[in-house]
Amino acid sequence: MKTITLIGSGNVATHLAKAFHNAGYQILQIWSREYDHAEALANQVFAEPIDKLSLLYPTADVYVLAVADDALFDLALDLRLRDALVLHTAGAVSLNVLKPISRKHGVVWSPQTFIRDVDMDYSELPFCVEGSSPDVTTHIMELLRPVSSHLFEIDTQQRQWLHLAAVMVNNFGNAVNAMAQDIIQSHNIPFEILHPLITMTAEKIKHGGLWQQQTGPARRHDQKTIDNQRRLLADDKKMLELYDLLTEIIQEKTKSGK
Amino acid sequence: MKTITLIGSGNVATHLAKAFHNAGYQILQIWSREYDHAEALANQVFAEPIDKLSLLYPTADVYVLAVADDALFDLALDLRLRDALVLHTAGAVSLNVLKPISRKHGVVWSPQTFIRDVDMDYSELPFCVEGSSPDVTTHIMELLRPVSSHLFEIDTQQRQWLHLAAVMVNNFGNAVNAMAQDIIQSHNIPFEILHPLITMTAEKIKHGGLWQQQTGPARRHDQKTIDNQRRLLADDKKMLELYDLLTEIIQEKTKSGK
Repeated sequence: MKTITLIGSGNVATHLAKAFHNAGYQILQIWSREYDHAEALANQVFAEPIDKLSLLYPTADVYVLAVADDALFDLALDLRLRDALVLHTAGAVSLNVLKPISRKHGVVWSPQTFIRDVDMDYSELPFCVEGSSPDVTTHIMELLRPVSSHLFEIDTQQRQWLHLAAVMVNNFGNAVNAMAQDIIQSHNIPFEILHPLITMTAEKIKHGGLWQQQTGPARRHDQKTIDNQRRLLADDKKMLELYDLLTEIIQEKTKSGK
Repeated sequence: MKTITLIGSGNVATHLAKAFHNAGYQILQIWSREYDHAEALANQVFAEPIDKLSLLYPTADVYVLAVADDALFDLALDLRLRDALVLHTAGAVSLNVLKPISRKHGVVWSPQTFIRDVDMDYSELPFCVEGSSPDVTTHIMELLRPVSSHLFEIDTQQRQWLHLAAVMVNNFGNAVNAMAQDIIQSHNIPFEILHPLITMTAEKIKHGGLWQQQTGPARRHDQKTIDNQRRLLADDKKMLELYDLLTEIIQEKTKSGK
């Protein structure tokens, strides 16, 4: 059986530890600078908690570095694991940062957001995989196959773009919903009225080209509604700027098509 | 049994006609300027198609005006229905436009988007209701109760804000997803990798305050990632502007709390 050691105890480390554990792998050690954090996670997956890199067993088959981007660069200075498979989990960091740590290195990144206290179905998680060689890529794919069936080979350059797109749909998408929530709540309207609309908007992604499915006042050049809505936003300079910019972008992108 | 006549044959008229028909109401007539359109919908709900307002039976209990905003103002000049209940379905139009048509008037607006060729579960649709008097509001609520259990009393001013919020979550939300789809596809990455993330982003609305749930480089002031992503967008002035504006808004809105 393959043994896995996790460096990190944050959100990504927690979910990966559980996903690997559920898939039948043995989690050997969990490292965190804070012993309590290491222990809390280690207890859940029957692993040994440690808070010093010098306590790492060099014998795990796989080391997963699930830490903040900056910490990855520090680890690259401190950690030498020779022949083990060493993986990082960062969307925005190049594969090459791991080169000094081990010859066999790779990236396992899942463009996913976690809702606190809500359990995930890991088998539905997409994983983007990059290996330092075709053999290593195959090796990582085999490692992940018991965890999820949604595995994609994505190189460092593609991952940068994918990360940008993930920021847009997730962070910007949430911000747009949050602004709507603010508007709604300051006029004593229950936000649940918009729940089905938000769910339906997300549902549209499964039905092809999204510009073709674009609707609304900007798309149909309904200037009367646009003017009314701009008037509502007159006191909020940033929101008005956003409204105008998105209206322009929508009109530009839907100009030629139906 | 209540009889309902529909003025209009577009998306909203179609879905409402089906929803009322499914709920057991008799649809008397369907009017459209294009006879073919009236007929296509009328056939589905066992109604009589007409293409002239002069052919309207004055005996229906309820007239639903589901037409474009501008056409509503035209109808207000042409249509006199005295004691019938007359409803419009527009998010952005005041209740008062119906005053000349009938004493008993109201608005039934559903902030919803329809996916072409995808059937809807109407019982999950939220309806925002406004009546010309408390009695009329009660009357409309009773009319809709067999159609949906998600009924909300929303006045004209609230409806304007709700409509703005709906434009944000639906039209702006779709636009943000569409831009991500463009980026993804121009780098030969399968868009399905982002499907679970988009679904999860929508799912967050059920878990409380959305600014508290905000994540990403803007939220954590991760300037290195922000700079990298701005560099990727350097050739697309509008997208860069949008990236900067949303980054600013997120940082401002999440400044004080966690």
